[in-house]
Amino acid sequence: MEERGSISIHTENIFPIIKKFLYSDHEIFLRELVSNAVDATQKIKRLAAIGEYKGDLGEPKVTVSVDKDARTITIADQGIGMTAEEIKKYINQIAFSGAEEFVERFKEAGDRSQIIGQFGLGFYSAFMVADRVEIITKSYQEGTEAARWSCDGSTEFAITSAEKETRGSNVILHIASDSEEFLETSRIKTILDKYCKFLPVPVEFEGEIINNPNPIWTKQPNELTDEDYKNFYKELYPFSEAPLFWIHLNVDYPFNLTGILYFPKIKNDFELQRNKIQLYSRQVFITDEVKDVVPEFLMLLHGVIDSPDIPLNVSRSFLQADSSVKKINTYITKKVADKLSEIFKKDRETFEKNWNDINVFVKYGMLSDDKFYEKAKDFVLLESIDNKYYTIEEYKALTQANQTDKNGNLVLLYTTDADKQHAFIEAAQNRSYDVLKLDSLIDSHFIGMLEQKLEKTTLKRVDSDTTDKLIEKDETKESVLNDKEKESLKGIYETAIDNKNMTVEVAAMSPDDAPLVITLPEFMRRMKDMSKAGGGGMMFMGDMPDMYNVTINANHSLNQRILNAKEDNKARIARQAFDLALLSQNMLSGAALTSFVKRSFELIDKE
Amino acid sequence: MEERGSISIHTENIFPIIKKFLYSDHEIFLRELVSNAVDATQKIKRLAAIGEYKGDLGEPKVTVSVDKDARTITIADQGIGMTAEEIKKYINQIAFSGAEEFVERFKEAGDRSQIIGQFGLGFYSAFMVADRVEIITKSYQEGTEAARWSCDGSTEFAITSAEKETRGSNVILHIASDSEEFLETSRIKTILDKYCKFLPVPVEFEGEIINNPNPIWTKQPNELTDEDYKNFYKELYPFSEAPLFWIHLNVDYPFNLTGILYFPKIKNDFELQRNKIQLYSRQVFITDEVKDVVPEFLMLLHGVIDSPDIPLNVSRSFLQADSSVKKINTYITKKVADKLSEIFKKDRETFEKNWNDINVFVKYGMLSDDKFYEKAKDFVLLESIDNKYYTIEEYKALTQANQTDKNGNLVLLYTTDADKQHAFIEAAQNRSYDVLKLDSLIDSHFIGMLEQKLEKTTLKRVDSDTTDKLIEKDETKESVLNDKEKESLKGIYETAIDNKNMTVEVAAMSPDDAPLVITLPEFMRRMKDMSKAGGGGMMFMGDMPDMYNVTINANHSLNQRILNAKEDNKARIARQAFDLALLSQNMLSGAALTSFVKRSFELIDKE
Repeated sequence: MEERGSISIHTENIFPIIKKFLYSDHEIFLRELVSNAVDATQKIKRLAAIGEYKGDLGEPKVTVSVDKDARTITIADQGIGMTAEEIKKYINQIAFSGAEEFVERFKEAGDRSQIIGQFGLGFYSAFMVADRVEIITKSYQEGTEAARWSCDGSTEFAITSAEKETRGSNVILHIASDSEEFLETSRIKTILDKYCKFLPVPVEFEGEIINNPNPIWTKQPNELTDEDYKNFYKELYPFSEAPLFWIHLNVDYPFNLTGILYFPKIKNDFELQRNKIQLYSRQVFITDEVKDVVPEFLMLLHGVIDSPDIPLNVSRSFLQADSSVKKINTYITKKVADKLSEIFKKDRETFEKNWNDINVFVKYGMLSDDKFYEKAKDFVLLESIDNKYYTIEEYKALTQANQTDKNGNLVLLYTTDADKQHAFIEAAQNRSYDVLKLDSLIDSHFIGMLEQKLEKTTLKRVDSDTTDKLIEKDETKESVLNDKEKESLKGIYETAIDNKNMTVEVAAMSPDDAPLVITLPEFMRRMKDMSKAGGGGMMFMGDMPDMYNVTINANHSLNQRILNAKEDNKARIARQAFDLALLSQNMLSGAALTSFVKRSFELIDKE
Repeated sequence: MEERGSISIHTENIFPIIKKFLYSDHEIFLRELVSNAVDATQKIKRLAAIGEYKGDLGEPKVTVSVDKDARTITIADQGIGMTAEEIKKYINQIAFSGAEEFVERFKEAGDRSQIIGQFGLGFYSAFMVADRVEIITKSYQEGTEAARWSCDGSTEFAITSAEKETRGSNVILHIASDSEEFLETSRIKTILDKYCKFLPVPVEFEGEIINNPNPIWTKQPNELTDEDYKNFYKELYPFSEAPLFWIHLNVDYPFNLTGILYFPKIKNDFELQRNKIQLYSRQVFITDEVKDVVPEFLMLLHGVIDSPDIPLNVSRSFLQADSSVKKINTYITKKVADKLSEIFKKDRETFEKNWNDINVFVKYGMLSDDKFYEKAKDFVLLESIDNKYYTIEEYKALTQANQTDKNGNLVLLYTTDADKQHAFIEAAQNRSYDVLKLDSLIDSHFIGMLEQKLEKTTLKRVDSDTTDKLIEKDETKESVLNDKEKESLKGIYETAIDNKNMTVEVAAMSPDDAPLVITLPEFMRRMKDMSKAGGGGMMFMGDMPDMYNVTINANHSLNQRILNAKEDNKARIARQAFDLALLSQNMLSGAALTSFVKRSFELIDKE
């Protein structure tokens, strides 16, 4: 036995599936039908341009109208129209794409990119919302008769002759009862605004042209002024502040892509979510979910991307696997890095001024993309506590002399909260150390990356140790207390503090340093932070208490005073000093703070 | 002219679309083919049960195997198999669903719900990953010959006879070069674990049965013990703590749905994201994105839902519009409310013990669903600062006498941070006021809802005014200072504070109250919070400075002391008192705090 044959698909089986499942949103029907109307219009213009059509072209537009009483939506165009024979060919055979054939026939006349239709399925999306669809159409060809096609959503159709004087097609949808929402003009307006705002042929609705047929991304950068870019941004995001700067994308090979990406001015985190990059295919809006097309770290940018190479109606996993999408991703990353590098080199002042707005993009990009890191490492900026900006190399040069420890490691100090860590910053500055502001969410990852990439360099939070120990130098401070006195002082404080999560030690510090300092070691804090973020298998750390170091300054007069105080006063003074140290670390709160404040009120009341 | 006819779909046009676009994830091919194998197995069991098949049934299973050298994946079953004629009918005609026909023929033998196949498209998903597919199959019918079907992904197929002794089908995929990832056994194992974990027929991979064919949701609640539910939870989420309680869903009409929803023990916010409800259709895993099927406020629950009425491979907007999905939503909401009400009534102690874990569900549900509100208003709990729990009615009864103001409004006090607002809580408690803990993110909305629903009731944060003014009573306190002294005191403080965002006033309070109190009015704070959250068109508020009230206690000895102090000491003492008040409100920070601490160290050093 051996038999060969063809797989067959029966229309009556597949048709219900196409109607129900092909598009994820029912509102897509309007995009498809208006796109078809635009295609028909582009075709007649093309034919006129090459002399195939000699009639009066006029200024063809597409008109969308809703008749709530008749329960219809009509999409009318002044395009090429169809004869009865063409209806049979293009409409009655689902998935027979007319676009391919048209392009084949007239390919000398221009490129394919002006024709939207791809699969020839779009028309049937009408049945997602309509229980009957009519087409009344008249071909541009002289001497042809107008025809009416009608179908009730079954696989049966009827074609009759019709009265229509002018060239073009009217598609009339008789809206089904479960889709009445589409008879609301406000709904239709919203859908048109979403999908048709930049279609290349004028689209009229309720007496007004609702689209801009020549958006600036279709033009060449040298035709455009800064004003043009800013105005277009306003058109896209009416309620946003002016963008910082933009990148005009324009590539023909190995894929087609145009677009404009804007670096937004970020006012608050909330806004980040709202505006997104819009993805177009030949000026038809496809989606604002550009994940996979745009590198993740650039998702916060605004703007438009238009590419006929990104397939319509595609699934995410398809996008991920698609090789042109991968190339687009790489291209965009490169363009953004080049633009940032250019601004940095040409106009560092502007770059620094905008750094607060763009640092998240840059850091995120460096973390997620090695190629971007390689470019960005030369323009990524570090901001010091006194609001000066340095490149990595500049900052290394600045700190090398004073902040290299006895093992030859450069120690960079940073603060995550200049307000809360003020006492420690002041202490570091007294040693002429510089302190970086690394206070955004992404900075904890950025810090890890810097340590990994830079040789012999570590970063320490300014409050992770006493100033002497943050950067250990080859010098020892003399202690005015002998070992016995130190031991005694340690005991007094341990009794006063009475907390086993506080490790007390006595160290010789400068008499000008604080009498005691409470610190949470860098390693411990990072582990806890990781645990909070849920990563690295460090969940168990979350349940562990914070283990603090309490360093008593042997050379501070207050501590010598405690040693010499009356026996029953020692613990009281030590406790008050400890409370002040807690206060300085923002660790005194609740009942302890209330009681501290009350004691202090009494103190000044008795003064 | 009038012409009627049938719409046609040409296989060569639609086939590429089906292959490429029908499924959003390529890995779905395995789900589809294993489901088909399970169907074939269920069918032979059915036939045996009704006496149509008299051969040895055995213990049929489905076997999946990967041959990396041959670059094939094979899915083998011991089901009904096919004759060459059946292949032509079921395989060669795409979208001709065998399941419908089978059910039609044998409908007396059981319900349709054990047959997965719906459209007959699933088999062709094999071509998403394979460039050639073979089927070697032998029908259960006696005297039939085994057949081999082969197709290279074009629309051409070949059927030849084959050698196969035993009943059933082997589907052999020759994996395409762009899909080599599926030749990794670890990948296949992951996909099987995801989609096939609870298929009703044993599925073998690498010598092991990877599924549980009888998950407990297919059983009746009265057959199950608490242990069964807890063990199943562990099977679903091996790394989670035991659930608080669960709801067994079981409904036949007007839709089919079974499942088990668990209230999880929530350890931290991070965990919320990870475990999700899994959606099954006839024991085949469909998705863990249950948005639209499950009410949003219950998305944090864990568990499984199995319903043949939820269509496979559907789009979000379809789900939203689908009427059975809406009914499922309503049903689940009702069941959850009933279960909570039952536990509350039967075992209030357990309910209170779990309140911390469930209060977010309940509050979110009340906010988003009126029907849920109506049921939940009788069991939603308010937690007081001393960890007692009250229903709304109980709490009103508790506070009515002491917390009704002079206008007859009940004023409920709350804290968002018992630690930071400790001084204010203590002051309120000194008046025998009760204070509620309303400290979670959802509580700000919950507070607004309570005020809207409860008549003559307002909620005030405990630090939004001085204790006297929080709940204004018909009583006036005598002031020991006369008006001139008050005016003078006000001036001293204004000079000492020197901040136009602090409005100073002098009021007669109890001598035991604090000498001065800084408060941020409730209205102002709410507006600022709304602005921070980005809502309500209050964006402009975000830029406004906080306007605080500073209330000086005319009856406190410290203030009388200030009035009587030496002229050059007045402002210094007032400033120190103000710093202490700032401290008490957690408003002293940065350089001001560092300087305060330094001054205080000096003070005790000189003591």
